[in-house]
Amino acid sequence: MEIASNPTHEHFTRLALEQARLSLEAGNMPIGAVIVHNGIVVASGRNAIDHPSNDTQHAELAAIQSIAPFLAAHKRECALYTTLEPCMMCLGAIVNVGIEALVVGAPDQLVGALNLMRHGEYYEQKLASFQLLSGVLAADSQALLNEYVARTGLRKHLARDSQ
Amino acid sequence: MEIASNPTHEHFTRLALEQARLSLEAGNMPIGAVIVHNGIVVASGRNAIDHPSNDTQHAELAAIQSIAPFLAAHKRECALYTTLEPCMMCLGAIVNVGIEALVVGAPDQLVGALNLMRHGEYYEQKLASFQLLSGVLAADSQALLNEYVARTGLRKHLARDSQ
Repeated sequence: MEIASNPTHEHFTRLALEQARLSLEAGNMPIGAVIVHNGIVVASGRNAIDHPSNDTQHAELAAIQSIAPFLAAHKRECALYTTLEPCMMCLGAIVNVGIEALVVGAPDQLVGALNLMRHGEYYEQKLASFQLLSGVLAADSQALLNEYVARTGLRKHLARDSQ
Repeated sequence: MEIASNPTHEHFTRLALEQARLSLEAGNMPIGAVIVHNGIVVASGRNAIDHPSNDTQHAELAAIQSIAPFLAAHKRECALYTTLEPCMMCLGAIVNVGIEALVVGAPDQLVGALNLMRHGEYYEQKLASFQLLSGVLAADSQALLNEYVARTGLRKHLARDSQ
């Protein structure tokens, strides 16, 4: 189910953007996430795949794993805010833990996996079962990503620099 | 790329099945995984989502995260053996860390995410880039899953009891 943006969504997305800024300062691609329960931030995470080297340390999975028992006790009660459309791994984790609402900043036309979910019955049902909002403060997220690309000049990340 | 089974694949799948057996003994759905580098098991993992409650503690992700820095240093050199077709989260992690070969026991026609990967250019290329083998000792994996269903009687897991 798609939902409309509002000041609350922008507020929590700004907190996710702060996490993304911390990623950038540590030399990583700037992506951040927070998890909210009853209006309170209960977890945060930021991309840290390059420093240190751990390709599973994505913002969303890191936030989820930091409070996995809490999420198991509060199924379908939490919202996850992320600055960039999740990859397959993180979106799968979001499905597995039963997030109620997913709020995305910038779309990721390369690695983003939201579209994949429309191609399997189980995942299509999951996609329909949570609230989804995309494009919240997308320009701010994109500006951080552009700053990373400008700093690193890494061509491999240019493809993620989607509109 | 699809690869053919051989005694080596069955040997490492048996080690993954031992992990699955440990899952079952702890009250979890029996799923196990091992990661192999140059013929040596460098990591193992088993499903532990129910005991304790952590919906990200899947066999494959647990094995991967236990040696994430090693995997980053040995991209495309490791094989992952799992007793059941990975879900979206675990398959995404397998993609992210750059596994060279994925050997699967039983297919999972509900939650298994291999098919999803054919529906997005980035993931389709990733799927084509690693070696894939499915059905190794599938009957042994299925027998363990059936034992779990018989023990727990949980209908929610029956749907994963695929042929």
